[in-house]
Amino acid sequence: MRILTGIQPSGVLHLGNYFGAMLPAIELQQQGEAFYFIADYHSMTSLTDPARRREYTRDVALDFLACGLDPKRCIFWRQSDVPAVTELSWLLSTVTPMGLLERAHSYKDKMANLAEGDIEKVNHGLFAYPVLMAADILLFDSNVVPVGRDQKQHLEMTRDIAGKFNTLYGEVFVIPEPRIRESVAVVPGTDGRKMSKSYGNTIEIFTDEKSLKKKIMAIKTDSRLPAEPKPDADQNIAIQLLKLVAPAEVASDMENRLRAGGTGYGDVKKALLEHCWSYFAAARQRRAELAADPGYVESVLAEGAARAEAVASRVIARARSACGLGK
Amino acid sequence: MRILTGIQPSGVLHLGNYFGAMLPAIELQQQGEAFYFIADYHSMTSLTDPARRREYTRDVALDFLACGLDPKRCIFWRQSDVPAVTELSWLLSTVTPMGLLERAHSYKDKMANLAEGDIEKVNHGLFAYPVLMAADILLFDSNVVPVGRDQKQHLEMTRDIAGKFNTLYGEVFVIPEPRIRESVAVVPGTDGRKMSKSYGNTIEIFTDEKSLKKKIMAIKTDSRLPAEPKPDADQNIAIQLLKLVAPAEVASDMENRLRAGGTGYGDVKKALLEHCWSYFAAARQRRAELAADPGYVESVLAEGAARAEAVASRVIARARSACGLGK
Repeated sequence: MRILTGIQPSGVLHLGNYFGAMLPAIELQQQGEAFYFIADYHSMTSLTDPARRREYTRDVALDFLACGLDPKRCIFWRQSDVPAVTELSWLLSTVTPMGLLERAHSYKDKMANLAEGDIEKVNHGLFAYPVLMAADILLFDSNVVPVGRDQKQHLEMTRDIAGKFNTLYGEVFVIPEPRIRESVAVVPGTDGRKMSKSYGNTIEIFTDEKSLKKKIMAIKTDSRLPAEPKPDADQNIAIQLLKLVAPAEVASDMENRLRAGGTGYGDVKKALLEHCWSYFAAARQRRAELAADPGYVESVLAEGAARAEAVASRVIARARSACGLGK
Repeated sequence: MRILTGIQPSGVLHLGNYFGAMLPAIELQQQGEAFYFIADYHSMTSLTDPARRREYTRDVALDFLACGLDPKRCIFWRQSDVPAVTELSWLLSTVTPMGLLERAHSYKDKMANLAEGDIEKVNHGLFAYPVLMAADILLFDSNVVPVGRDQKQHLEMTRDIAGKFNTLYGEVFVIPEPRIRESVAVVPGTDGRKMSKSYGNTIEIFTDEKSLKKKIMAIKTDSRLPAEPKPDADQNIAIQLLKLVAPAEVASDMENRLRAGGTGYGDVKKALLEHCWSYFAAARQRRAELAADPGYVESVLAEGAARAEAVASRVIARARSACGLGK
């Protein structure tokens, strides 16, 4: 069973990325032949700073490797190192009905939020993105693609497009199955909303202790006195985060004490800082080691690209031959 | 000066293709560094029969070589043998405003002629086609692209897209100049409308004498008697075609005799058959020789692809580096 995961190179890793996406993704390497790619082609639809694209790509590679992605157990590469994906994207474009793309939620949402005339600011890559995503999946004969609920439609589009191609040109593509991640942790940010870079409420993982402390101390708490009983202790943001990084009994003990009025917010935050720091200690050390050897990440990605390419070249040859391209 | 021409693999060569597009294209090899590609990726937006795509691609290569394209003086390749064009197409997509593509005449015309609900039958390749065309042009640092009036807008779109990319990512692309072919021969078909495969009024060039005779004898004439004076002799379809394939004095002599009533339609058609047959005699023989050596055309296209690839690989490397892809 081949499981494919795309990784957005979207900047500095925070608790929300880690528990919401990275950890479930890394666990997949135990479950089958896991393929991971860093989606730098996709990033072009929204990020136009080349230096940042390089930096984010390198950073997310370091993050994944530091957090346990094992390049011996999986195939890990940078999307743009296997350009055949763009060729397949063209082939698929010619069998993709315009109506299908126009119904994409992500595109419709984008358009609904536009002021009149702003269509000039929407790029075609954004519209064509589900086709490139279909190519990402089909190029590797992926059997399973784990997606969040919000990505389910894109997977269905991939299945539609693959089906149309197979009908026209013969059985070229494996039709992938979605696997909906039902219970992904929603990680609250420092202001209580979902942790997200766009809200500016993130807590970064690979940062120095002082910065981490500052972020944790800034977590929003209500204005009740420190030692007062708090029946809604489970709603406390710091408690929720503590549950992610501390042993279960430590977190529930802290929650109970907060509920009973035996401790205050400051203590909870102090515990969070401590456990957050130690939870990522090994990964932090590993990341520092990896970062100190700039050639290492490149060599991992290069080897991954060669292995991905070996699979891709067979599939693209099959697709080209089926539709009468080349000699 | 580098001049780029795309060639549609659209089936059997007829007089309309030859005088309208092929001859002016072949003449370009005298004027600069001429690049010619057979647009098999593009053909996917309308042709979904793989065997026909291969056949048409091979046929159009044979046609061009037989009619004088000299692979030593130019670069001649099959588009899909240099897949970097699809990669560049993705890069360009991400800087191409949706509004630009929605204003494309070719797409608007297509949409205007659709019945409601038929949007499902329009494929995304048709919509994205101007982006692939921009990639065709920009991938080879083309300076000049000869286009018909109807293609002028696509060239302007290419210039727009290249300009946007250069503004965002630095001076990567050469901005091409259009060269509008003002006086392209409009070749009448056997029914008097423009000669076109879609009207079923074509006269094929590389056909046997019997079939050619049948086509020419079927040219529409009015119902006046053979020997009557015909003041509108210049409007006669066979006379117009004769002017293309016969020496000027032969055609004008025939026209004058027809006008004066000294000859009839049958004689004009007989002259047309004779001159048409001899005009293409050398090309016909050359084509038969080339076709008898199946490896030859492939070797020409393979060598052309290698030379095109050498140019393309430098340009795509420049583009990738500028936008922060790869290491």
